[in-house]
Amino acid sequence: MKLYGAERGVNPRRVRIFLAEKGVADIEHVNLDLRAGDNLSDEFLQKNPWRTVPVLELDDGSFISESVAICRYFEALYPEPNLFGTTPYEIADIETWSRRVEFDCQVPTSQCFRNVTRIFEGREECSEEWGEISRRRMLEGLLRMERRLEESTFVTGERFTVADIMLTVVLDQALNAIKQPLDEEHYGSLLSWYDEIKARPSYRA
Amino acid sequence: MKLYGAERGVNPRRVRIFLAEKGVADIEHVNLDLRAGDNLSDEFLQKNPWRTVPVLELDDGSFISESVAICRYFEALYPEPNLFGTTPYEIADIETWSRRVEFDCQVPTSQCFRNVTRIFEGREECSEEWGEISRRRMLEGLLRMERRLEESTFVTGERFTVADIMLTVVLDQALNAIKQPLDEEHYGSLLSWYDEIKARPSYRA
Repeated sequence: MKLYGAERGVNPRRVRIFLAEKGVADIEHVNLDLRAGDNLSDEFLQKNPWRTVPVLELDDGSFISESVAICRYFEALYPEPNLFGTTPYEIADIETWSRRVEFDCQVPTSQCFRNVTRIFEGREECSEEWGEISRRRMLEGLLRMERRLEESTFVTGERFTVADIMLTVVLDQALNAIKQPLDEEHYGSLLSWYDEIKARPSYRA
Repeated sequence: MKLYGAERGVNPRRVRIFLAEKGVADIEHVNLDLRAGDNLSDEFLQKNPWRTVPVLELDDGSFISESVAICRYFEALYPEPNLFGTTPYEIADIETWSRRVEFDCQVPTSQCFRNVTRIFEGREECSEEWGEISRRRMLEGLLRMERRLEESTFVTGERFTVADIMLTVVLDQALNAIKQPLDEEHYGSLLSWYDEIKARPSYRA
């Protein structure tokens, strides 16, 4: 199998962390340069007409696009350690938290990043006004995660799941790409959680 | 079990259609008025501190929030008819298409709707500029779905899945709430697909 990704992209990184947590190492990685437009080439459009990374190429020549879809594929192939839940309630609860992280934290964080930095200028329309509204929504979303992590070791409870991977890349993007300061006073539990996440081997994936 | 929803909300409607497709009828439905702020009451915050609908209350007093999480719960309880996939590849492929519909169609459609109509004025910041950018992104996303539906009966292939439910509520919102015209010339396959969807009994859920 071959995994097409990009070093700095939020979505490829989710899959790399997921694979590291699963202990899956026999995948060939191909790095694309998104700013240079590698993902817009005719060759790549054959693999994914939606032009996004990551894309997983299977040995039979078929493709899976979208980070979480690729993670679900590997979860089905390698069920242990479980990252998406096992009982009906746990499956649902992990999905609930994953969606809260994605829609209330990742969406505003990505929209803040892209509208404020205009990193894909010329390829998408940007709004500085929306970039700043998104920044405030990102901070609100992260405050809600702070409340959650005041009472819970990991995002979904007492064990690491895919929802923690989703929140990890939100914090990476907020702190490193947007350079948004998050102070100990308001985000102490979130930052402690992040320190624990950064100490896991998978964080370097 | 008790399902808290709202008559016009996109997310509660996804669950209602899903339950109708599954043939699950023994659920008590409670309707909230979101414009009146029923979801902001202390009583509701006990059920879901994130203040969104739908919320499913289980018989043991626990809760599941987020539409797709509730759908996954019912999929686990009642596997037939299958709507999320069975083989590893099919599970991944349905997730791929679901995410394309959600992130490339639903997110811009909802953001267009909320920023253009300012329906939650006073509760969230709006940007008219972003509303119009979102409208153009929604139309781009729907054009991609048009390309897909030129070659495929349903969103994920030859059978109805949860991805069709996701696209259904996008079209409902675009056509009925935003009143965005979609012409036969550019969106013919999408509109034919929508006609077939509207003929299913679950559409009236």
